[in-house]
Amino acid sequence: MDWSSLFARRTEKIQPSAIREILKLTQGGEVISFAGGLPAPALFPIERIREASDRVLAQQGERALQYSTTEGYPPLRAWAAEQLPGTDAERVQIVSGSQQALDLVAKALLDPGDRVVLAAPTYMGALRAFDPYQPEYLTVASDEDGLLPDSLEAALKRSPKLVYVIPNFDNPRGTTMSLERRRNLIESADRYGVLIFEDDPYGQLRFEGEPLPSLFELAPDRVVYSSTLSKTVAPGLRIAWLVAAPELLEQLTRIKQAADLHTSTLGQMVAHAVVEGDFLAEQLPRIRSYYHRQRDAMLAALDTHLPSSVHSTRPEGGMFLWLTLPVGSDGLELLQSAARRGVAYVPGAPFFADGSGLNTLRLSYSVASLELIERGVATLGAVLTESLAVAS
Amino acid sequence: MDWSSLFARRTEKIQPSAIREILKLTQGGEVISFAGGLPAPALFPIERIREASDRVLAQQGERALQYSTTEGYPPLRAWAAEQLPGTDAERVQIVSGSQQALDLVAKALLDPGDRVVLAAPTYMGALRAFDPYQPEYLTVASDEDGLLPDSLEAALKRSPKLVYVIPNFDNPRGTTMSLERRRNLIESADRYGVLIFEDDPYGQLRFEGEPLPSLFELAPDRVVYSSTLSKTVAPGLRIAWLVAAPELLEQLTRIKQAADLHTSTLGQMVAHAVVEGDFLAEQLPRIRSYYHRQRDAMLAALDTHLPSSVHSTRPEGGMFLWLTLPVGSDGLELLQSAARRGVAYVPGAPFFADGSGLNTLRLSYSVASLELIERGVATLGAVLTESLAVAS
Repeated sequence: MDWSSLFARRTEKIQPSAIREILKLTQGGEVISFAGGLPAPALFPIERIREASDRVLAQQGERALQYSTTEGYPPLRAWAAEQLPGTDAERVQIVSGSQQALDLVAKALLDPGDRVVLAAPTYMGALRAFDPYQPEYLTVASDEDGLLPDSLEAALKRSPKLVYVIPNFDNPRGTTMSLERRRNLIESADRYGVLIFEDDPYGQLRFEGEPLPSLFELAPDRVVYSSTLSKTVAPGLRIAWLVAAPELLEQLTRIKQAADLHTSTLGQMVAHAVVEGDFLAEQLPRIRSYYHRQRDAMLAALDTHLPSSVHSTRPEGGMFLWLTLPVGSDGLELLQSAARRGVAYVPGAPFFADGSGLNTLRLSYSVASLELIERGVATLGAVLTESLAVAS
Repeated sequence: MDWSSLFARRTEKIQPSAIREILKLTQGGEVISFAGGLPAPALFPIERIREASDRVLAQQGERALQYSTTEGYPPLRAWAAEQLPGTDAERVQIVSGSQQALDLVAKALLDPGDRVVLAAPTYMGALRAFDPYQPEYLTVASDEDGLLPDSLEAALKRSPKLVYVIPNFDNPRGTTMSLERRRNLIESADRYGVLIFEDDPYGQLRFEGEPLPSLFELAPDRVVYSSTLSKTVAPGLRIAWLVAAPELLEQLTRIKQAADLHTSTLGQMVAHAVVEGDFLAEQLPRIRSYYHRQRDAMLAALDTHLPSSVHSTRPEGGMFLWLTLPVGSDGLELLQSAARRGVAYVPGAPFFADGSGLNTLRLSYSVASLELIERGVATLGAVLTESLAVAS
């Protein structure tokens, strides 16, 4: 076969994941990894899932193992609707993880050349999900409170189809959009008639400060909203959901039906059996205090070991923080040195749709033990200090 | 929001599933359904799945609930490779049901206007999966032995990207491509340098006659192959796989990563724990003799109750058979009468990419009891007899 002439043009934009390639560096040896976006497995409610799975199969085995409707298991749709003020089960589409939410929304909306507004940096997986639909990215400057109004306004003037944002504990930076910026985004999107895609995998993982209303709560008709069980229960289940206006939801459901018929019936019924009742009311405090402790350990280690010319965000929730090195540093190049000395992270550049961000990197504090956080950050500090000394 | 201007052009081809709309007719009341393509739930190995699920969570809970690689759970890839002579685990991509296999292959290969060769009729779900990529369909005439060589040749001359076929117990007709036609298809595809997509969900469900080699076995470099656990274990698990040449598999994996990261880790590990060892060697004879009995009951009832002007296929495996009514009959119109009298089926037209097939319909013999098969076919026979009497 002559493969090169066979692939669709959209595959030209489909590149191997940078994270994937980098993580290969760290396979094998004893590596302290701040790289992956993995939830801490110690938080997985294994016994509850085991019990739920056993109960679902014992009591409703034939239903759990049969084909089911594309929209999703009705009690799970109802539960998801209850998590978000101002909606109902009819507006919920169950999907196979938040990544599928990104793919379905892009497939419904984006023709080649259509414009998508997003922050630089933004979630690399969103760029990879959108890429095959060949959009043009309009990147908006942002600070630790979210998108800067003037830059957003300039982008909206260029008639985008969509604004993509992660308002809570952003991947990769861990930063949160302020209430003022949320209101500004909605007001601007209203003015230009643009849809907002609110990706909210981490919203319930706030361990500090006061919760803010979601964009969906502020403007339900302007927002397509996505959340997931991956960070509150377990990612291996691949259970997430989209909430959208009926016109859009109908398209998303048809697109999902053509793409994979429906999400695992068993997976959905087990997930529902896990979360029904007050489970998250018990589980979320455990998760929050765990990541709070982890973040504190990483901030303390960064304070001790990093050169003062390196800036870190201070997340109030979620799993990530973000370092900005002096201009001229190269996060990818430094990773080679760090990995050789047994520490892994994700360089920042792949999170930027505009090719900038060379001097940044993402650290995840979710998985490493407190001791390894201290040790890994000490090593990272040494690598950065040496590199900056050479550069100056 | 002004939704009409917001949707991508590809959504113009995305229509509600005809099956779905029709099945709404039959919700509620006491309906004998020959419509859905559902495996018989009596065949689901519920206890084995329950035990497997319990064991996986007890012994490998953290792994089963964590993110995992896009390619799939290695032991499941190895098991899938063992099912198909001439391949290995490295050429297997685990997917979330065969429907996802259709979507991924189309996404990798089809630009708008690219041509896809397929039989008329063919699997409606394949048309729905391909539609969003805006191909042109080239339909090939076929008889009960498969694609007719002259018609195939004419289509291949028009430089298609892909030939899509279901060689074993085709959905919707239940017919099987003969060995001679398999060789002809491969020889022709070789001559024109065209890739063949072999969709094989039913291959292991042969209850009569001798198994034939898959197209993949005959020409592994010319074929992308797909199969599933939906008909041998249970569809609610959403576990299937693709086998392809390394160049194509790499693209499919990247596309799947962008679309949903990976198939449920827990689902894959449970599925593997179910099938490992000799399970299918015990399970397949049960399934085959069950559907054999069901098919016999339906053929006998058709012979008794149907007007002699109606022709039925005689499947040697799988779950479907196909009726051809005298020209001028309308399977969709007749469904209204049949449904009012308590019998449902799927009209044939939606299985035709070329708009033909009005006088056809699909019957599934997989789910109804032997008694209801007799009673439902008697009703159907009365409806058809009356309609043909009026027409003549």
